[in-house]
Amino acid sequence: MNEGRTGIWFIGARGSVATTATIGIAGLAEGVVRPVGLVTAAAAFDDVPLVGFDDLVVGGHDVDPTPLLERARRLAAGGMIPAATVEAVARRLEAVDAEIRLVPRSPRGSQRREIELRADDIRSFRDRHGLRRVVVIDVASTEPLPADRPEFHDRELLEHALAQEGVELLPSSTLSALAAVGAGSPYVCFTPSISLGIPALHGVAAEARVPIAGQDGKTGETLLRTVLAPMFSSRGMRVLSWAGANLLGGGDGATLADPAAVESKLASKNRGLHDLLGHDVVTPLHIDNVPDLGDVKTAWDHVHAEGFLDTRITLQTTWTAYDSTLAAPLVIDLARLLSLADEAGLSGPIPELGYFFKDPWGSDEHAFARQADELVSWALQTAVRRASAQVA
Amino acid sequence: MNEGRTGIWFIGARGSVATTATIGIAGLAEGVVRPVGLVTAAAAFDDVPLVGFDDLVVGGHDVDPTPLLERARRLAAGGMIPAATVEAVARRLEAVDAEIRLVPRSPRGSQRREIELRADDIRSFRDRHGLRRVVVIDVASTEPLPADRPEFHDRELLEHALAQEGVELLPSSTLSALAAVGAGSPYVCFTPSISLGIPALHGVAAEARVPIAGQDGKTGETLLRTVLAPMFSSRGMRVLSWAGANLLGGGDGATLADPAAVESKLASKNRGLHDLLGHDVVTPLHIDNVPDLGDVKTAWDHVHAEGFLDTRITLQTTWTAYDSTLAAPLVIDLARLLSLADEAGLSGPIPELGYFFKDPWGSDEHAFARQADELVSWALQTAVRRASAQVA
Amino acid sequence: MNEGRTGIWFIGARGSVATTATIGIAGLAEGVVRPVGLVTAAAAFDDVPLVGFDDLVVGGHDVDPTPLLERARRLAAGGMIPAATVEAVARRLEAVDAEIRLVPRSPRGSQRREIELRADDIRSFRDRHGLRRVVVIDVASTEPLPADRPEFHDRELLEHALAQEGVELLPSSTLSALAAVGAGSPYVCFTPSISLGIPALHGVAAEARVPIAGQDGKTGETLLRTVLAPMFSSRGMRVLSWAGANLLGGGDGATLADPAAVESKLASKNRGLHDLLGHDVVTPLHIDNVPDLGDVKTAWDHVHAEGFLDTRITLQTTWTAYDSTLAAPLVIDLARLLSLADEAGLSGPIPELGYFFKDPWGSDEHAFARQADELVSWALQTAVRRASAQVA
Amino acid sequence: MNEGRTGIWFIGARGSVATTATIGIAGLAEGVVRPVGLVTAAAAFDDVPLVGFDDLVVGGHDVDPTPLLERARRLAAGGMIPAATVEAVARRLEAVDAEIRLVPRSPRGSQRREIELRADDIRSFRDRHGLRRVVVIDVASTEPLPADRPEFHDRELLEHALAQEGVELLPSSTLSALAAVGAGSPYVCFTPSISLGIPALHGVAAEARVPIAGQDGKTGETLLRTVLAPMFSSRGMRVLSWAGANLLGGGDGATLADPAAVESKLASKNRGLHDLLGHDVVTPLHIDNVPDLGDVKTAWDHVHAEGFLDTRITLQTTWTAYDSTLAAPLVIDLARLLSLADEAGLSGPIPELGYFFKDPWGSDEHAFARQADELVSWALQTAVRRASAQVA
Ligand SMILES: NC(=O)c1ccc[n+]([C@@H]2O[C@H](COP(=O)([O-])OP(=O)(O)OC[C@H]3O[C@@H](n4cnc5c(N)ncnc54)[C@H](O)[C@@H]3O)[C@@H](O)[C@H]2O)c1
Ligand SMILES: NC(=O)c1ccc[n+]([C@@H]2O[C@H](COP(=O)([O-])OP(=O)(O)OC[C@H]3O[C@@H](n4cnc5c(N)ncnc54)[C@H](O)[C@@H]3O)[C@@H](O)[C@H]2O)c1
Ligand SMILES: NC(=O)c1ccc[n+]([C@@H]2O[C@H](COP(=O)([O-])OP(=O)(O)OC[C@H]3O[C@@H](n4cnc5c(N)ncnc54)[C@H](O)[C@@H]3O)[C@@H](O)[C@H]2O)c1
Ligand SMILES: NC(=O)c1ccc[n+]([C@@H]2O[C@H](COP(=O)([O-])OP(=O)(O)OC[C@H]3O[C@@H](n4cnc5c(N)ncnc54)[C@H](O)[C@@H]3O)[C@@H](O)[C@H]2O)c1
Ligand code: NA
Ligand code: NA
Repeated sequence: MNEGRTGIWFIGARGSVATTATIGIAGLAEGVVRPVGLVTAAAAFDDVPLVGFDDLVVGGHDVDPTPLLERARRLAAGGMIPAATVEAVARRLEAVDAEIRLVPRSPRGSQRREIELRADDIRSFRDRHGLRRVVVIDVASTEPLPADRPEFHDRELLEHALAQEGVELLPSSTLSALAAVGAGSPYVCFTPSISLGIPALHGVAAEARVPIAGQDGKTGETLLRTVLAPMFSSRGMRVLSWAGANLLGGGDGATLADPAAVESKLASKNRGLHDLLGHDVVTPLHIDNVPDLGDVKTAWDHVHAEGFLDTRITLQTTWTAYDSTLAAPLVIDLARLLSLADEAGLSGPIPELGYFFKDPWGSDEHAFARQADELVSWALQTAVRRASAQVA
Repeated sequence: MNEGRTGIWFIGARGSVATTATIGIAGLAEGVVRPVGLVTAAAAFDDVPLVGFDDLVVGGHDVDPTPLLERARRLAAGGMIPAATVEAVARRLEAVDAEIRLVPRSPRGSQRREIELRADDIRSFRDRHGLRRVVVIDVASTEPLPADRPEFHDRELLEHALAQEGVELLPSSTLSALAAVGAGSPYVCFTPSISLGIPALHGVAAEARVPIAGQDGKTGETLLRTVLAPMFSSRGMRVLSWAGANLLGGGDGATLADPAAVESKLASKNRGLHDLLGHDVVTPLHIDNVPDLGDVKTAWDHVHAEGFLDTRITLQTTWTAYDSTLAAPLVIDLARLLSLADEAGLSGPIPELGYFFKDPWGSDEHAFARQADELVSWALQTAVRRASAQVA
Repeated sequence: MNEGRTGIWFIGARGSVATTATIGIAGLAEGVVRPVGLVTAAAAFDDVPLVGFDDLVVGGHDVDPTPLLERARRLAAGGMIPAATVEAVARRLEAVDAEIRLVPRSPRGSQRREIELRADDIRSFRDRHGLRRVVVIDVASTEPLPADRPEFHDRELLEHALAQEGVELLPSSTLSALAAVGAGSPYVCFTPSISLGIPALHGVAAEARVPIAGQDGKTGETLLRTVLAPMFSSRGMRVLSWAGANLLGGGDGATLADPAAVESKLASKNRGLHDLLGHDVVTPLHIDNVPDLGDVKTAWDHVHAEGFLDTRITLQTTWTAYDSTLAAPLVIDLARLLSLADEAGLSGPIPELGYFFKDPWGSDEHAFARQADELVSWALQTAVRRASAQVA
Repeated sequence: MNEGRTGIWFIGARGSVATTATIGIAGLAEGVVRPVGLVTAAAAFDDVPLVGFDDLVVGGHDVDPTPLLERARRLAAGGMIPAATVEAVARRLEAVDAEIRLVPRSPRGSQRREIELRADDIRSFRDRHGLRRVVVIDVASTEPLPADRPEFHDRELLEHALAQEGVELLPSSTLSALAAVGAGSPYVCFTPSISLGIPALHGVAAEARVPIAGQDGKTGETLLRTVLAPMFSSRGMRVLSWAGANLLGGGDGATLADPAAVESKLASKNRGLHDLLGHDVVTPLHIDNVPDLGDVKTAWDHVHAEGFLDTRITLQTTWTAYDSTLAAPLVIDLARLLSLADEAGLSGPIPELGYFFKDPWGSDEHAFARQADELVSWALQTAVRRASAQVA
């Protein structure tokens, strides 16, 4: 076991994923929730010293002031979460709510100043609770991808612009990521927003000696795709097209109804497929906001492959699930694993955590089964490394 | 490359799978067919010395006298195979037809005698063509499972009964398998028939120093299941039920319309699922003969899993393919790999060939990605072993 | 509007369908439930004088003593019904519970006596509440079909056997139907059980001058089929096969897991299809009990049709719904429409109510759109007839 | 029977639909094709005097000079049509090819002149073959919808512009429609192009005393929708969303890959749904060009409806078919029915032919079953009317 308690600081702490994860952590700690859907609860991780559910303390940033308990009750009313579970942890949710801060704004200040204000919130959360560390996890609304800029490719230019008052260069996801790194916090990017994907920032986490992992949680359709695509390859079947239709409501549905926001998501979703199958596969993909479906997401995929003697093989899949309950346990897994990585002294992008992401930082491996094997080996090796680190 | 030519002796040589494989081998040899759908054509096998397509010579047993070319043309008419491909290899099909023998019967003789007659056909095929070896592959109609018998558990009792005239103890699949082993031939059981699954016969292949592999080719629905089930496990989602419906026409459809024959198939199809997910998963499964669908098989699966916070996850898959064009390239792969195994001096069941089967002999591994890794490693190791064997 | 209140007497009053219908009636009366899913709430019925929801009084028979409110709460816990709705009508459910009687048994008496005891319960319900009439609706568990008997074809033999003590000739569904008819009550058979399907009993309802309607509610897969099949016919596409797989848990799932019980259901489900498409269509059909699915039913159908120039057309449908919430509003519709029929002096099977059933009594029409037109015309005509009847 | 032969003049005569229809007509005339997929071959039309298949003579316009036989062979190679059927009618296809004209262009002339040139081709086809009439059927590539113009709303302005040299006001579909009307030919618009949908032209067909019918053939997904939507309404289930994904290759796939062209198609496809279900239903819809799928079109629909007690009902449909073999028989039906209408002296849009179209001219009825009843009644009435017309 980890000594000391670990903080989780959610960017987007009142969103669907963060709220669900918070309910889950509270319920796991109270023993009213079973660790179904968690990766790190499997026997394979029995010997890995991961922080216990009751040693996780939650806080975060959001731009929306709706109380967390109200958000949680809305999710229950929508059918995603049993109402009884929400009520069983209501007190804990209120305690977390007191640890959520509105994202600080510095109207006429520089972006460097904004980063500092965000980092201050993280640091004071850590100090207030005497936490060993705080893992920052971005689960905020997907941002539109920013247009390219010379500053994105030149660290000096970038630092200069950040220091300038009134200049809005970096999007919010990047500011939050830099705040995390600045506060010495391990950082997870669970969204497709650009975050640390800006070229000039590729080295910041390693420099700051904090471990990071990303990006864009791999939960539903994309998970399935990276499980299925290697089957076609291994069997020598030539995939010609892989089309997809996603229907979803809820907060994420509304955000992705914006064509600018959806662009980063679509790119992220198709990347693995092309890596696994080659770039001439035809991959039309749509995400539609269907508000009446609420938090239930339905994805239909149609795969066309060529088999032996020019024969047609088709596979259709329909996946239906509450999206946030797929994401929430992974977010908890990531908090535990990043905490371990930090404990073991690792820094920079952790390629073996690619298992959790559509667009893995530091890795080109998308094949799910291979990623799963890599993850388990990594966890065991890191456990050993941490043990030696502590002895030394 | 292997020196010398290798024979393939199909049990069920005029069936849909054997005919398709034969067309494929002929087309590959002539260069009019591309190696799509073959596993051993992948780059991973580039350094493995496998017999070339033009060094494969085909013959076999069947109970049906319909000329092979006629069977091939019927498959083309049914839409499974391009008519042009059949015509391009018509001459080769006629040559193979001349190497197909009706299964020899010895009306009042013993079953030991029947085994000998079958073995004689294999040996004379080998000698007639000066083949280095003959790989025997069972792709005959699925048999009903025989009722259990004391002789099945006691080698001595069994041998005694085999010597008795007029006693019909063993089903045809077992007779053919024993004929193969008796002729010193590597043997593949691609069907769910009992074959060497009789307990008293478990050691015969090892004793005879021939490599064997089985059983029941993993091509469609079962392939998908062993690809998908590990995803649910790895992600901690608890699969509660996995239901399946299979619709098919063609020869196999008609055979499986017989409830006695279908029983062995159904057992074989569900085994992997229970191994991968635990035995309390509810797994209703049906196979229906729908003659109008011809050789196209459609399988629908419905998976219900429990996710985080008691949420419902469902996955439906619909797989549609010409069943025999899925099986045929695997049969060719198996001929090449068993030939390599034999060349390297291996004998008995080869666990690493479990990749190809619903019910792997010598192995409990059903997870497809893991099987794929094992297969490639095994091929490379065996290549090395063969090289040393030849030096020595 | 109907003057006076109308009773509904459910056979199987504590089952899923009856409980859901009772919650619905209570909620409609209280104004906390909207008339979604009801046929008779459409504008087309605006001029038809149907009994109001607040004029319906519910009672019934069951063999299970579990209090109705407990059954209702279980349905809510299973996700089928909002818990808030159940609580909003809890008091009304308790009142109905007081009107539910265990099916009376007369251990050593005759079946005629059993019929009388059941009829007494219905009559005393009517008198206790001063009801204008009581519509009896069978929503009990599906029974196995009884083996044929000479008494089933000869009224005299049958009456004789009914009078005999200790003779168990008729199944429970028939006893309840005869009790209804004996009590002068309109009767609906919503199940596939034999009920009045015994040839010797075909005339009883007409003789007793009570209107009846049946049989086996058409709610999910079968509804879809009778909507889709006429499309293929109208467009000249030749349906070759129509295969179906049904997965369900809940009470009905458990009952239908019994092969004897499922037989009547399967026959009932396929009848319409053959009537609409001709008898050589291949129609494999399965119903599987999958307890983890609870009250959600999923049905997959695969249709194969031949189009112009021998081309293949396939249609797959997947229907997912809470089965009892499909059935319950129809049961309410039927109570209202049978009440109207009775008021207008109609008797015997009402063919135009075939709209509601898999196996319509008195009609061979299965095409849904045509049935819908017939239903509306009938309702208007019956309204006119009732008006004249009342004037006269 | 009709006396005299009837011509069909296809706009887009070398396209997939026209080629398939031409093969079909030839095959029906020769007796090598069965009338599967035709509406007018049903018993319901037995007493309607429709022109015989061997009395149909085909010609048309196209912008592509590829010989018809070559187009037909390509369709056979793509798997849509049996090669044997094409070869059996090869001579007839060559004869039709000789009757296909490139769309005449009048580079610097007026559009009125272009209309005249097109009409001349139709008239000279009629005279050359001594045809009783020529039915013009537009099955050309879908056009982008033109931007609105004042001339579209004022007949005088429009005529003025048409007379002007060098002015390109009307799109090709409208020019062809006006040519048909000008030549006194019944006209069918099978595409979603604007054609006679220009407000100022609404009366032209009635003025010219020719019957017309349109628009946009209702063959696959839309057909299904107008069959299924009335089921939900009749049963009082409230449809909240109806999402659709269409995958197709072939010529139509390539055309619809152009966002401008697809716009008219999408509008046309959703119109019926909103009419049948109300305008607040959420209906995301996509058409993707997936070239590897060739002429096979796959459409997935996901319907979400609210049932009784706020329960969720979902229906998914997957429809797979060769699109042109769905359209071709309808085109033949329409030629026969328009010929009848003309014979009976009808003119202007025929509302009862709305059965064939996504966007019926002269009618708001989209419910398929109702349309089917209307069609049959209309055909019988028109037959009677024609008989009286001939007597008089
Ligand atoms: N299965 C999944 O749910 C899944 C999978 C992969 C990725 N994601 C990503 O996770 C993210 C969250 O998804 P969700 O369903 O919880 O969405 P949501 O809309 O419910 O929640 C997003 C939250 O972020 C807050 N927010 C917006 N801008 C912010 C900012 N600048 N700083 C801080 N907070 C801000 C919003 O107020 C909201 O509370 C999305 O980016 C989504 O793409 C989710
Ligand atoms: N994807 C696949 O096609 C697939 C996958 C796994 C297993 N299999 C198995 O492969 C086998 C062959 O399938 P198929 O589709 O080719 O069937 P098929 O019916 O087309 O062919 C079977 C052939 O075996 C012959 N035969 C029957 N009894 C025999 C006997 N005693 N000895 C020799 N020949 C005999 C028949 O005459 C026929 O020619 C079946 O057992 C099937 O279950 C096929
Ligand atoms: N969509 C639908 O739900 C649907 C559609 C068509 C037909 N049905 C039929 O409706 C019936 C009820 O379905 P359900 O889901 O409510 O089942 P259920 O198992 O929940 O309820 C059946 C009830 O009948 C009671 N019962 C059993 N034997 C009885 C008897 N002899 N007399 C009186 N009561 C008896 C049981 O105790 C139980 O309470 C079934 O026959 C089913 O096939 C349902
Ligand atoms: N099920 C169906 O196939 C279906 C259903 C409804 C509507 N439609 C419509 O039918 C039309 C034809 O479909 P298709 O699959 O045959 O397409 P296609 O691309 O195969 O054929 C279109 C033909 O039109 C020709 N053409 C293009 N512009 C022309 C012009 N200005 N004048 C004359 N000819 C011209 C092209 O050269 C081509 O030969 C499309 O508009 C399509 O939307 C088809
Ligand atoms: Na095994
Ligand atoms: Na009937």
